[in-house]
Amino acid sequence: MTGHPTSGSALPDRTAPGGVIPPLCTPLTEDRELDTASLERLCGFLLDAGVDGLFVNGSTGELAYHTDEVRLAALRVVSRVAGGSVPVLAGAVDLTTNRVVAQARAAREAGADAVVATVPFYSPTHPGEMADHFRAVREAVDLPLWAYDIPGNVQRKLPAQVAAELAAEGVLAGLKDSSGDLDEMRTLLALTEANGARGRGFTVLTGSETMADTALALGADGIVPGLGNIDPHGYLALHRAVRRGDTKEAAAEQLRLRRLFALTRVGDPARLGTYSAAIGAFKEALRHRGLIASATTPLPMRPLDDAERAEVARHLAQAGLGPV
Amino acid sequence: MTGHPTSGSALPDRTAPGGVIPPLCTPLTEDRELDTASLERLCGFLLDAGVDGLFVNGSTGELAYHTDEVRLAALRVVSRVAGGSVPVLAGAVDLTTNRVVAQARAAREAGADAVVATVPFYSPTHPGEMADHFRAVREAVDLPLWAYDIPGNVQRKLPAQVAAELAAEGVLAGLKDSSGDLDEMRTLLALTEANGARGRGFTVLTGSETMADTALALGADGIVPGLGNIDPHGYLALHRAVRRGDTKEAAAEQLRLRRLFALTRVGDPARLGTYSAAIGAFKEALRHRGLIASATTPLPMRPLDDAERAEVARHLAQAGLGPV
Amino acid sequence: MTGHPTSGSALPDRTAPGGVIPPLCTPLTEDRELDTASLERLCGFLLDAGVDGLFVNGSTGELAYHTDEVRLAALRVVSRVAGGSVPVLAGAVDLTTNRVVAQARAAREAGADAVVATVPFYSPTHPGEMADHFRAVREAVDLPLWAYDIPGNVQRKLPAQVAAELAAEGVLAGLKDSSGDLDEMRTLLALTEANGARGRGFTVLTGSETMADTALALGADGIVPGLGNIDPHGYLALHRAVRRGDTKEAAAEQLRLRRLFALTRVGDPARLGTYSAAIGAFKEALRHRGLIASATTPLPMRPLDDAERAEVARHLAQAGLGPV
Amino acid sequence: MTGHPTSGSALPDRTAPGGVIPPLCTPLTEDRELDTASLERLCGFLLDAGVDGLFVNGSTGELAYHTDEVRLAALRVVSRVAGGSVPVLAGAVDLTTNRVVAQARAAREAGADAVVATVPFYSPTHPGEMADHFRAVREAVDLPLWAYDIPGNVQRKLPAQVAAELAAEGVLAGLKDSSGDLDEMRTLLALTEANGARGRGFTVLTGSETMADTALALGADGIVPGLGNIDPHGYLALHRAVRRGDTKEAAAEQLRLRRLFALTRVGDPARLGTYSAAIGAFKEALRHRGLIASATTPLPMRPLDDAERAEVARHLAQAGLGPV
Repeated sequence: MTGHPTSGSALPDRTAPGGVIPPLCTPLTEDRELDTASLERLCGFLLDAGVDGLFVNGSTGELAYHTDEVRLAALRVVSRVAGGSVPVLAGAVDLTTNRVVAQARAAREAGADAVVATVPFYSPTHPGEMADHFRAVREAVDLPLWAYDIPGNVQRKLPAQVAAELAAEGVLAGLKDSSGDLDEMRTLLALTEANGARGRGFTVLTGSETMADTALALGADGIVPGLGNIDPHGYLALHRAVRRGDTKEAAAEQLRLRRLFALTRVGDPARLGTYSAAIGAFKEALRHRGLIASATTPLPMRPLDDAERAEVARHLAQAGLGPV
Repeated sequence: MTGHPTSGSALPDRTAPGGVIPPLCTPLTEDRELDTASLERLCGFLLDAGVDGLFVNGSTGELAYHTDEVRLAALRVVSRVAGGSVPVLAGAVDLTTNRVVAQARAAREAGADAVVATVPFYSPTHPGEMADHFRAVREAVDLPLWAYDIPGNVQRKLPAQVAAELAAEGVLAGLKDSSGDLDEMRTLLALTEANGARGRGFTVLTGSETMADTALALGADGIVPGLGNIDPHGYLALHRAVRRGDTKEAAAEQLRLRRLFALTRVGDPARLGTYSAAIGAFKEALRHRGLIASATTPLPMRPLDDAERAEVARHLAQAGLGPV
Repeated sequence: MTGHPTSGSALPDRTAPGGVIPPLCTPLTEDRELDTASLERLCGFLLDAGVDGLFVNGSTGELAYHTDEVRLAALRVVSRVAGGSVPVLAGAVDLTTNRVVAQARAAREAGADAVVATVPFYSPTHPGEMADHFRAVREAVDLPLWAYDIPGNVQRKLPAQVAAELAAEGVLAGLKDSSGDLDEMRTLLALTEANGARGRGFTVLTGSETMADTALALGADGIVPGLGNIDPHGYLALHRAVRRGDTKEAAAEQLRLRRLFALTRVGDPARLGTYSAAIGAFKEALRHRGLIASATTPLPMRPLDDAERAEVARHLAQAGLGPV
Repeated sequence: MTGHPTSGSALPDRTAPGGVIPPLCTPLTEDRELDTASLERLCGFLLDAGVDGLFVNGSTGELAYHTDEVRLAALRVVSRVAGGSVPVLAGAVDLTTNRVVAQARAAREAGADAVVATVPFYSPTHPGEMADHFRAVREAVDLPLWAYDIPGNVQRKLPAQVAAELAAEGVLAGLKDSSGDLDEMRTLLALTEANGARGRGFTVLTGSETMADTALALGADGIVPGLGNIDPHGYLALHRAVRRGDTKEAAAEQLRLRRLFALTRVGDPARLGTYSAAIGAFKEALRHRGLIASATTPLPMRPLDDAERAEVARHLAQAGLGPV
């Protein structure tokens, strides 16, 4: 990528990954500091498993909960451990254009190979203003830019038509679809096929843990499953099965992973937010597998209780996942 | 305030203001830099009019659109111009606890007399976690803390029961209600009357431009109207009328201000987000009155067009507002 | 009313009531048949208290839960008991125009003095189509037509601008506002004042139990509180206080009624829908006061349990309400 | 089905159809009466094409817009034309249990082979109450009962867990999924596989026009596409392709149908509700193909204008669909 977003040149392979790209959990020590050793161990585990990329500071990485300092420290660790072997995508998530530019520049300095940004949030934004937002970010930062389509968290969906237009202009190198809307993803794939962006490397990843096989079958290039922190081998097997056309095998693996994903629902909604429950379960599973030292989550997330942790362990056992 | 949030000691008057506290617009130069001279002029105009406080980096101040640097630069200007004559509240708005703490600390350094923070957003949060969030922010920053209840922007309402509990603990010094839910505001007033927080200075402000007289009649201590940048004298007259019990006069002034508020709807929704339209109209009105040099808004907001600007001028004329 | 909805002639007083107009509960026997005797007793109690009108087949009357036969049987009882002493408004609620016309015609036959209809629901509807809907209903049925603005149940708000236009045309005789949006109600009052509809008798009622004094102070003509089934004397006292300008007395009575209204929240949300909880509590309170024989609710609403019923009794005792 | 809903006996094939089951449009004359001749012609066309069932009084059939008389008249026509050759499912859509029972009984009399009902709407309902609702309807009406899961119209989703439980009890014979949520559909399929309901004939149909191939690949038994009124041959070809495992062919046909489906978006949102636009376009396409006499829609839907009708014709031409 030359910094000329409208040149339409092919994106280098390294920044347009397909395959399995786990959105990394961010391990914390018990006093809520970044646990660098655990993060290194987790990255090493995923790289050894054969993942195709790493996504730092995504929603699974508790992007909303960490200061800029912690975000960047995590990114530096991951970038160092990856050492160029796979591309490292970094969330550059903040409220609006100027703030996203600041995040993206810092991520570039810290070693990101590409940045991933949402539409503006907090204030309502017109679709045309969404487009200008991505254009301004791309112009300001000389790195491939991915759209992070996550309306459940930022309240507004990036319309497929707008994303396709930005892909054609070379502003967007790809889109990470955490909307769950496979119908709209299919529209985006068709539009970017038609306008030539796909041919020039525009990439679509799904954030779904539970419909990964379907998204791939519909044409997505890769998957970014939070659960892939815990069971990368499962998602890699699923991905290989889809690629070789073995729909049945892929569906069977997906079914196993769908069952495992139930661990995100062990938390009591009378006590915990859904997010605290899901991230808490991911971290407890990683701790149980020996990949991180502590399941600590950042303020103000409440921790799982003993019974809920036992449930996580039960789910892991059912899925055949023990200590690494 | 001693920094012991649970002590229950009376809040000093200076940080528990009532009356009219405009949420300042943030003037920009045509190349989108902070326009310090215009901000000084606007502050001077409002202080001369007799406002009871100033709120910097609220939604009207485009908090979502500015970098930390611009936020703090604006706060420093306002703090300097206010010079202790009225309290300066500052938005410390960011996604979650750690990030809000960083914002609040920086605001304290830059001269804020109190900070105003929302519930966590981006990720769903349990009401009990909302309470822990405010507790952690208050403990980390030795300044009076206000809750900024703005569910239209952060998707979740701070329940009155939670706010009242935090008021009783001394965690919250006040609440700025931008929810439009007068029924719930009334519940909060009753709960904090009952638990003693009101007696110790817990303060409720409404962010409504159009129901300010009603909110005050229901017991709110003050108003934070964005339109108060443009017509502070109107809101001051309304406030005085309510205070002396002249409901009719207050309603008449409110009616005039309701009509003026229609200037926020001149923008074409086919081209502009509602927020771009409203802030653009505020800034155009300030420019037209000679209070700021340019109506420039930050990226990616689109500007009003000529016809829309003419509409703003027409609304000002109808309200009897000319150049200052 | 002449049947010429566009004539603009004054509406007869009898169909443009102000004051206190309880939306009647619909008592059922234990085997879920209409309990005519209880309905007669309840109507008699309310008329003796001095209410200004009765609203049958509103949401409090479980309109969604009863067949046309039960709806009409209830209406006939109420119409007979009222005997022309006060106007009887009847809900004519169904999905869209043709079905509402059928409901309204049947209500007319059964003795309604006016019908109350929502905007179309189930399918999304354009505001201009909402207007055509009310026009078609009014043209088809020779009775005063009220808009029932209840977006919480029908998902779409009737915009004040559209309601005001229909008021000016003579299509709408009034509007029952169950939206909770006092700001928009104020806009409607201002628009219909300006376009002459208020002068010709266009009437606005609020459905709020908890902001009744405020709605009246803002210009609403009357109130339709579900809680008025249980404590009509309280709402009549509140209404009189507002009318004679005694804001303080009105607020004190409103505060007492707000506390009583907490009985609608005694139900356990893990077991009951919010509606089952609220209606179940109203009926239990009526039963406790000896006004109806059974607190039975229609399928599929679940009943309150013993502890919740005891809570209802406690709320009644606190409010000083015993058996009649 | 014997009327013993809990017996768990196998459902007869005739009421558990798979394949392609178009939700019939309801043709009207220009004066908005049921156009029986056009409805017969449309049914005949679909049966000749080889559809596997017919669904009357679904959302595409404007269920919300027609009186009981018109609903039943349409059902009688379709039932007569079908003559037992394929099963006829009929919508029994109304607000709550008692009203749905009345609808279902009437549909049974008019010749329905199965009835399709939503969860209660208008008032909020607890999931446990949803279950009781379907149980009561099934007990009252001796016909196979289908759940109509259409949260976009009735605001609440039937949770997969509840649907699966009702399937296991024999209360539900099937579910028509118009939620667009393929992830949850997959959960329902897995749960009903596990609890034995699938083995006893519990059937899942998708209402999606645009993801039909995917839904079938995930295990849905059939499809209920509104667009199937206009192009049944396309959906039959798609269905056959999936059944013989030719994913590529199915996807190609789906892509053609996705493009054709764009005709539902020709209406101007500044003038038309989305529903008026979609149904208006379906009817205009049927008229253009010579299958119905008039594109008239019921009140208060506004019609397409000339330019929009021309757009519909253009979409038909692109899809290779001319007069029949």
